[in-house]
Amino acid sequence: MLKSWNDGAAKSAIVDFVGRVTAQDGPDFVPAEARIAVFDNDGTLWCEKPAYIQLDFLVRRLAEQAAADGSLKDKQPYLAAAAGDLSWFGDAIAKHYNGDDSDIKILAGAVLSAFQGLTVEQHAQRVTAFFADATHPTLNRLYTACGYTPMVELLRYLEANAFTNYIVSGGGRDFMRPVVAGMYGVAPEQVIGSSVGLDFNDGHLMTTSRPEFLDDGPIKPVRIWGRTGRRPILAAGNSNGDIQMLQYTQASEPPRPSLCMLVRHDDADREFDYVAGAEKALDEAAAKGWTVVSVRNDWATVFGD
Amino acid sequence: MLKSWNDGAAKSAIVDFVGRVTAQDGPDFVPAEARIAVFDNDGTLWCEKPAYIQLDFLVRRLAEQAAADGSLKDKQPYLAAAAGDLSWFGDAIAKHYNGDDSDIKILAGAVLSAFQGLTVEQHAQRVTAFFADATHPTLNRLYTACGYTPMVELLRYLEANAFTNYIVSGGGRDFMRPVVAGMYGVAPEQVIGSSVGLDFNDGHLMTTSRPEFLDDGPIKPVRIWGRTGRRPILAAGNSNGDIQMLQYTQASEPPRPSLCMLVRHDDADREFDYVAGAEKALDEAAAKGWTVVSVRNDWATVFGD
Repeated sequence: MLKSWNDGAAKSAIVDFVGRVTAQDGPDFVPAEARIAVFDNDGTLWCEKPAYIQLDFLVRRLAEQAAADGSLKDKQPYLAAAAGDLSWFGDAIAKHYNGDDSDIKILAGAVLSAFQGLTVEQHAQRVTAFFADATHPTLNRLYTACGYTPMVELLRYLEANAFTNYIVSGGGRDFMRPVVAGMYGVAPEQVIGSSVGLDFNDGHLMTTSRPEFLDDGPIKPVRIWGRTGRRPILAAGNSNGDIQMLQYTQASEPPRPSLCMLVRHDDADREFDYVAGAEKALDEAAAKGWTVVSVRNDWATVFGD
Repeated sequence: MLKSWNDGAAKSAIVDFVGRVTAQDGPDFVPAEARIAVFDNDGTLWCEKPAYIQLDFLVRRLAEQAAADGSLKDKQPYLAAAAGDLSWFGDAIAKHYNGDDSDIKILAGAVLSAFQGLTVEQHAQRVTAFFADATHPTLNRLYTACGYTPMVELLRYLEANAFTNYIVSGGGRDFMRPVVAGMYGVAPEQVIGSSVGLDFNDGHLMTTSRPEFLDDGPIKPVRIWGRTGRRPILAAGNSNGDIQMLQYTQASEPPRPSLCMLVRHDDADREFDYVAGAEKALDEAAAKGWTVVSVRNDWATVFGD
């Protein structure tokens, strides 16, 4: 297993950690039911550049709404969506990570209302239809082929060692669920993500435009506890929004083994090379001894082909 | 299995339903991953009379707070707590189910602030300490011995048939988790319940006095979807707060098999005899063909002794 990982510090850290927590007679043994591993999704399990995959799904819907309702055409983010201008969206998110929430609020309102009034099953059908043929804008592959092969191997390796994996993402819970079973072998009940409030109406659950959770930063550990009632022993992320999830994993009292991993995107040839949005996380990794995974050096393949 | 169930319509309904959904070649087959069963807790898995078990835990804490802070002594619910007057609390809940929320709001404020400022681990320790020796006021047994033996058998029977069971209770999520593993064999990640908001602080999760979820009525199906991303095929409850959870289980489109059960407390000799708070649910059961489980007639034993 872990065939798509090059020999090196990151692979060794994983194998060593799993060996220690599964060694029944060793000092670091962790019983199977407490072997909880948590994974960010965008930039950790699948590609997040040049834009979040969910943003493509959203922009298509906003353009559809702008085409159907003339009053939206001159307003952001519908203006940018109708023009196919993804940079406005990327800038809004970059501003957010730098502390300026002006555009993200406009975007959030549109995100929240984009799919309101559907049953959760109807929403899932839209997601499934999107992933059936939507392709990455520069990598020339289906989005469903944009998962990182070494990370999917890691999920399997952990399962084989009786871990339970959870995805803990700022992305939409109900956007990920229909596709991650096929891409990663992760069941819907193992997906924690952002969500809108739902209304129960005549036997069915309907989407609303009310925010429920924005599953990012300090909310990630809150949601992990809410879902599992446990503190993870392994966490993997790639950006500033993952810092608290990794801190939570590491800060157990009394202390017990943990593995905190940060994927570093440094491979412009095979994927992307960027640190924007990950600066603080990389500083924290250095300070706290987290394992930094270099895409360029640690992964023998990125997408398995 | 199901040895503590008397032969009769309820037991037959369970055995027939499980047989149908597990018959690989039959028309009602449901794959294992979709065999989700949801159970209310108070009055469905454990005894809820003469008062909710969590109310005892709360009243002890309110009395402690009243003793420590004189300014609380003359105010409800501290006044009732210090006097050991449980009827005020029971009345507040009964009023709530009859549409009068005046007292429940006062109670909710006290509930929310009673345990604020603890780490989730400290809170769990308080719960564990409470259950170590707290006894039921009239049944002469530990609260941990107040689970219904036939329902625990049903949980095991469903697990043996590859169901995944969830508790979906208006009771506190983090009040149930430390004790239900031992009582029912249900893991913390299978517990859905009411909760306060948590704050992430220096690596740890701290309780607050902010409400997060009141997991009752229409919120139950919302939380089931949020947790599992699936619609259950079996649901069991006992009160008006379970109606929507059972409706949700039954209303699948396209239709597929479901079993909706309502425990009817009609056994004053072995447990309690009451319908207060369950009137609408019993009406709905009759109208929708739900399986009513009579404690008196369907259970050979209530507590297994």
